[in-house]
Amino acid sequence: MSSKSVDRRAQPRIVAEERWQTSLTSIEPNMIQVRGYPLDEIMGRIGFAEAVYLLLMGELPTPTIGRMLNAVLVSSIDHGVTPPSTLAARNVATSGAPLKDCVAAGILAFGPHHGGDIESCMRFLDRGLTLVRGGKSMQQAAEAIVAECVASKETPPGFGHRYHTRDPRAARLFQMALELEVEGEHVRLIRAAERALAAHKADFDRPLPVNVDGAIAAICADLGFAYELGNALFLISRLPGLIAHAHEERTRQAPMRQIDPKDHDYDGARSRRLPEGRN
Amino acid sequence: MSSKSVDRRAQPRIVAEERWQTSLTSIEPNMIQVRGYPLDEIMGRIGFAEAVYLLLMGELPTPTIGRMLNAVLVSSIDHGVTPPSTLAARNVATSGAPLKDCVAAGILAFGPHHGGDIESCMRFLDRGLTLVRGGKSMQQAAEAIVAECVASKETPPGFGHRYHTRDPRAARLFQMALELEVEGEHVRLIRAAERALAAHKADFDRPLPVNVDGAIAAICADLGFAYELGNALFLISRLPGLIAHAHEERTRQAPMRQIDPKDHDYDGARSRRLPEGRN
Amino acid sequence: MSSKSVDRRAQPRIVAEERWQTSLTSIEPNMIQVRGYPLDEIMGRIGFAEAVYLLLMGELPTPTIGRMLNAVLVSSIDHGVTPPSTLAARNVATSGAPLKDCVAAGILAFGPHHGGDIESCMRFLDRGLTLVRGGKSMQQAAEAIVAECVASKETPPGFGHRYHTRDPRAARLFQMALELEVEGEHVRLIRAAERALAAHKADFDRPLPVNVDGAIAAICADLGFAYELGNALFLISRLPGLIAHAHEERTRQAPMRQIDPKDHDYDGARSRRLPEGRN
Amino acid sequence: MSSKSVDRRAQPRIVAEERWQTSLTSIEPNMIQVRGYPLDEIMGRIGFAEAVYLLLMGELPTPTIGRMLNAVLVSSIDHGVTPPSTLAARNVATSGAPLKDCVAAGILAFGPHHGGDIESCMRFLDRGLTLVRGGKSMQQAAEAIVAECVASKETPPGFGHRYHTRDPRAARLFQMALELEVEGEHVRLIRAAERALAAHKADFDRPLPVNVDGAIAAICADLGFAYELGNALFLISRLPGLIAHAHEERTRQAPMRQIDPKDHDYDGARSRRLPEGRN
Repeated sequence: MSSKSVDRRAQPRIVAEERWQTSLTSIEPNMIQVRGYPLDEIMGRIGFAEAVYLLLMGELPTPTIGRMLNAVLVSSIDHGVTPPSTLAARNVATSGAPLKDCVAAGILAFGPHHGGDIESCMRFLDRGLTLVRGGKSMQQAAEAIVAECVASKETPPGFGHRYHTRDPRAARLFQMALELEVEGEHVRLIRAAERALAAHKADFDRPLPVNVDGAIAAICADLGFAYELGNALFLISRLPGLIAHAHEERTRQAPMRQIDPKDHDYDGARSRRLPEGRN
Repeated sequence: MSSKSVDRRAQPRIVAEERWQTSLTSIEPNMIQVRGYPLDEIMGRIGFAEAVYLLLMGELPTPTIGRMLNAVLVSSIDHGVTPPSTLAARNVATSGAPLKDCVAAGILAFGPHHGGDIESCMRFLDRGLTLVRGGKSMQQAAEAIVAECVASKETPPGFGHRYHTRDPRAARLFQMALELEVEGEHVRLIRAAERALAAHKADFDRPLPVNVDGAIAAICADLGFAYELGNALFLISRLPGLIAHAHEERTRQAPMRQIDPKDHDYDGARSRRLPEGRN
Repeated sequence: MSSKSVDRRAQPRIVAEERWQTSLTSIEPNMIQVRGYPLDEIMGRIGFAEAVYLLLMGELPTPTIGRMLNAVLVSSIDHGVTPPSTLAARNVATSGAPLKDCVAAGILAFGPHHGGDIESCMRFLDRGLTLVRGGKSMQQAAEAIVAECVASKETPPGFGHRYHTRDPRAARLFQMALELEVEGEHVRLIRAAERALAAHKADFDRPLPVNVDGAIAAICADLGFAYELGNALFLISRLPGLIAHAHEERTRQAPMRQIDPKDHDYDGARSRRLPEGRN
Repeated sequence: MSSKSVDRRAQPRIVAEERWQTSLTSIEPNMIQVRGYPLDEIMGRIGFAEAVYLLLMGELPTPTIGRMLNAVLVSSIDHGVTPPSTLAARNVATSGAPLKDCVAAGILAFGPHHGGDIESCMRFLDRGLTLVRGGKSMQQAAEAIVAECVASKETPPGFGHRYHTRDPRAARLFQMALELEVEGEHVRLIRAAERALAAHKADFDRPLPVNVDGAIAAICADLGFAYELGNALFLISRLPGLIAHAHEERTRQAPMRQIDPKDHDYDGARSRRLPEGRN
């Protein structure tokens, strides 16, 4: 551009300059503190799941909550090739795009019908607990919120699965919440809602047990997570799955292939059990 | 569309139909197996970091490797508001977009200069180890690969930090690798390269100790991770940070603000220490 | 993986196989037809804006609608460095990520407060037109929907601008809609709403003329676009802006810089006019 | 957070404050100037494709270049449901995610093998033109760069198509470049390379005529576009296709379906021709 045609103008400041605050992490030369704890001091002393809790909730979890959160994060780590998020990631991978692009595309598929159910279920349960605060029994509240869904012909969020008739992950999460004594009113309400729903069997074309999203929703609500952080736990949990599929697609398949989610086989490790004594 | 104008044509199959394979996770009714292990059985029995290793590497980690991996994942969980990934996530958040969109945008900023360094550093170290296989000593190999960078006036990947003069996370990772006895030739080579680089102090305008990316690169290479999975560990580690910042932006700041990375203060928890006995 | 441990299992088909339909583009060997028109035949014979209309709406636009749509697409092509989408794109660019990643991050920032206003405004106007169908006059309907927003202390979607007190793009779009005789009831209603809003001046801290989003919303609604396609026109319009900023960041600025939206100047071409006789 | 535990600290400025420049668009109250032209003045006076050129290249295109660019942008507007970008967008759409998320995921699939070919082809041609500057004839240069690809058993970028044996879009673009007299040395070189490649028919398992990416690459290089802006034109061109498919998926298909790219039919408008007298 010739200097003659140039017109150097300070662009106006649209918003008045003012300082803003963050309460997550402070940075000083050679010192990083997460929620007040020196990062290098917590490394090796708390696990990743506990560090996630610290960062999102502001305080260290108790060891019990740490165990519960580890189980929540493990529960959704992968679900094979057919979820839309996995297929989005694989379709980006087949174009030769870098791993992070595949993963970002996968995350975008965590829409209302896939992962987003956790937040919806947390809100669904809180509607019920408002009824409990107003004097209804847990079972009455469960029946009321279930009836609302039945009336509008909607599956309540957190119930049923497009493939499983009984979700083994939900069962295990509830069992752990019981054993670890972290079960609270959200878990009790969702179990009550499951019973209420069974009475409406005729209204739905498939069984509707609590699914993994519902179990995560109830447990995380009991642990005090904000709605959108409930969904966020699912994101953290599934990220390794998106990475593993994108990496497998990039390293094992020809580029630019047409990915048919139905025509695949599993050829991995045989069914096996954890070794004895493995916690 | 009127039926008259419709032209129903089977669209040709561009690729011959054939079955394809995955070795990650198998799905059967009410049964999910990750690398052969029933998911509900590993929930509560292995931690999330160990499940990440299982999914990405195909086998359970030893408890020692599990501890090392937890430390690696904790090391990069957040670095305040100034990394480009965090600012990308916050700029998406200020538009009112859902949390997952903020996170996806943040992940897209894990470019060559930010996070991508891990893969570059793994390749840098492997070039050195090829020299070792060819007969050079560790220190000679380190000097050779460092000299290459110096000659092209490039900072070797995994060294130096735009803010810290000594990266406390790298020091802690190396200390743990030593104590846990998982140190291997990549760690030894990067320490040798750090020494070699110190001799070239005059060629750079700042100190260049190993940074957290370099430490992760060396340790993950010693653990056998593929190049792009080295970067992937950083993605998993930083995801909670992106979530925390997007959530803070969405809940604490006015929408559509102009985010100036420089004009911020930390107003979170005071500096504190882990309680006694917290492993 | 040793062959002994492998377990080859056909993964179950989650959804029954059935054919599905698309009505957009048909592909045969050496023949691509968009909405029935051979693509190579329309190339050079209709402009890009007209092809966008054909693809999204199913039919060729009249030349008049083609001109209107070109103006709509030009109207939002760029708005300098300060929109959150532009800053998201630039923050991804400074990490060294490829251009497409910057652009994708920018698109994610087209949230409810930025671009998403078009859909909200279309719905706002349709609420008013429902009142008109019910017997109210255009002005009464405008006053009713404006009063609703005032009562809930919300700025109606499509009005006001964080920086401009009068949006020159909106004025030009309305002028063209009038001259091209494509003005319809949505445009008439939004002008009536602008008048109704002026009577509530005391309730807001700034002038609230129709902004470019409001003008696009009204005109696109009059042209028959579906709600989410109204937003989509903004996406198409702004994409070149995102590209230009990402490219400028990548080619003109140092990597890994801290992007302060306030501290920038414009040093481009001086203010100039279209040459005589240009269109 | 209790005030007792708060520790308000100004976070250090990592980079010295300095002003930075942009030459794209200047913003003043009620005045937006793109490359010096008032935006409201060019609206209705230049088409969208011309505005794209102005924004990316800094000057208004000639009417001839405007026509060529319109054809380039129309050429890749859609290619049915099977490209990975389209499938990524549809897989995100089936999760219920908003339109912009589908589109962002689609853009991420414009990887090296899909769209990215344009940049690779521009570089391929510039390697040839360097030989021409060094004294080789156009045909010799073409043979040299083709021979390099043949030797490394790679298809030269911009040649061949996974489905078409002759790309009708490339033929039309070359015809227009000839008629509009914008053909330059890149177009002549790619035609020479096509002839050179035909002599190596035995080395490849399919015909390798210039494809639409190759034609765009050669024409855009002749028009003076930077490498990454060549790819960017493809992004602009295909965005409406991504939007149309995401919208069709969201409005016509059941959510959470398994998208098989092979089992689809076209049921849109019958084959038809442009009306007489249309441009």
